[in-house]
Amino acid sequence: MLLQHPPGPDDIRQAHKRIAPYVHETPILFSTQLNALAESILYFKSENFQKTGSFKSRGAVNALLSLDPEILRKGVATHSSGNHAQALARAASLLQIPAYIVMPRNAPKVKVAAVEAYGGQIFFCEPTLEAREQTLEKVRSQTGAVEIHPFNNYDVIAGQATANLELLQSISPPDYILCPVGGGGLLSGTLLSTHYFSPATKVIACEPEGANDAWQSFKAGKFIPSSNPVTIADGLLTSLGNLTYPIIMDYVTDIITVNDQAIIQAMKLVWERVKIIIEPSAAVPVAVALQEKQLFRNKRIGIILSGGNIDLQKLPWQ
Amino acid sequence: MLLQHPPGPDDIRQAHKRIAPYVHETPILFSTQLNALAESILYFKSENFQKTGSFKSRGAVNALLSLDPEILRKGVATHSSGNHAQALARAASLLQIPAYIVMPRNAPKVKVAAVEAYGGQIFFCEPTLEAREQTLEKVRSQTGAVEIHPFNNYDVIAGQATANLELLQSISPPDYILCPVGGGGLLSGTLLSTHYFSPATKVIACEPEGANDAWQSFKAGKFIPSSNPVTIADGLLTSLGNLTYPIIMDYVTDIITVNDQAIIQAMKLVWERVKIIIEPSAAVPVAVALQEKQLFRNKRIGIILSGGNIDLQKLPWQ
Repeated sequence: MLLQHPPGPDDIRQAHKRIAPYVHETPILFSTQLNALAESILYFKSENFQKTGSFKSRGAVNALLSLDPEILRKGVATHSSGNHAQALARAASLLQIPAYIVMPRNAPKVKVAAVEAYGGQIFFCEPTLEAREQTLEKVRSQTGAVEIHPFNNYDVIAGQATANLELLQSISPPDYILCPVGGGGLLSGTLLSTHYFSPATKVIACEPEGANDAWQSFKAGKFIPSSNPVTIADGLLTSLGNLTYPIIMDYVTDIITVNDQAIIQAMKLVWERVKIIIEPSAAVPVAVALQEKQLFRNKRIGIILSGGNIDLQKLPWQ
Repeated sequence: MLLQHPPGPDDIRQAHKRIAPYVHETPILFSTQLNALAESILYFKSENFQKTGSFKSRGAVNALLSLDPEILRKGVATHSSGNHAQALARAASLLQIPAYIVMPRNAPKVKVAAVEAYGGQIFFCEPTLEAREQTLEKVRSQTGAVEIHPFNNYDVIAGQATANLELLQSISPPDYILCPVGGGGLLSGTLLSTHYFSPATKVIACEPEGANDAWQSFKAGKFIPSSNPVTIADGLLTSLGNLTYPIIMDYVTDIITVNDQAIIQAMKLVWERVKIIIEPSAAVPVAVALQEKQLFRNKRIGIILSGGNIDLQKLPWQ
């Protein structure tokens, strides 16, 4: 990790320049039909169109380009069965260094295949956090690879902040930004970039009811970890980290939860009306916008659609 | 119908100006992953993002805006269970005139609901072409509405031509344009606009094997109607019309067919890799690009993605 403090405005601007040749400036989409349903004006920052299908490419590329090539020579490692694994594998392949990915044995085949397609080398382990951490430690000590944490890393946070930076550079200041929260990397980046570049805009974190550790932490005013989370939004299962937790507590306006039924309905609505593929985690802020009509009526709302990776063989409405 | 001859270059330019306030200039998308798979360079003109979810809005809006308001006063009528029905209903609602849509009793509920959502008034009939035509005739004589044919209408063809016009205005001349063919309205417009505005570009029509009447007609050099067509590409079931047939015979370079399995695979590939929803009919030219790699290797290819209306409850890979 290059940054030893939460990214400042220049860190985010520099991250944006650094990663620009390797990631997409994703489009901002509008839908008159969804605006009518939500009774507000929605701006969809569409990170489902990002390289590897999610915003995670921003953080992974920024983290790798921030580090000394000599440190990276022996490769990078992480434990993840999700979008960070794909993003890290691709970022490593850009630099022609190995990426070692620890995944639980029961990870969906489609996710294993995606990481392999980007050239990642997979180490399987038992599906417990303990086994994942032990296996990662073993892989690191055997290979000399550097761990790149999916969210508890200021370089990663600076990279994720660039999605919202692009949104704020493209539209006049919105009233709200709605952002999903899992480990809090995207949310921390979104909070900081909003604080620096559009200070009058309120950021609301959006979380599944079945994985509401951030909501619990926010309400209690202390860190409460995720325990036995169950939700369709498979990107939002993790607890906050010790680097993301304080940023969130300092800057978030509120955290609002939605249940899985609302998430699935919102996802289907976006597929049907906007004609784009988003994953359940990306549908969480859309569900919040539809649920909280009174709060948001006639407001201008930026929504970070975090990704579009989903197994088309297993759709939740079937 | 205002135009009494195949639209010329000025007719297409005027149609484009006429409809501009009421339809989207749709984006042109790229996918490095699909380029790698197809071994060519693909430009996706994404009419799935068009108003009502397909290119049909272009032709319907142009047809209605071309006619004398006095003639339209009693409304418009058509028989269609597909995208033209939705497009005509919306276009009529813009002009605040009624749209009478004749649909077979067995039309999917999702399509009935879509037409109703745009304010169309539906008349159900038996599911035969004869019953549809008789019912349409009855509705017309009772209401005084003007029939707007889905493709056998030069104003409609001029409207459909504007999708390809936008594509040709946005990229340097491609080697090929791939366009699906059903009744031939989109194809006729695409052929004429290519002939006028990018004469060195070849247009290849793309048709499902199970509804290959245009292919048969092209090979035989005479009009052969569709008989008992069976294909997943439900927008491409109809025969050519007497206005579209001669345009196609004059200008098309070739007609290439693909089977339903190839269409379904191509559709899934676009959903997974490009992260957009396209309907089976729109996947037909994608399937052709993937099937005919030898012909298209390293060529620059414009692909008209005709629409994105599909029942998410009934996906063909499930």
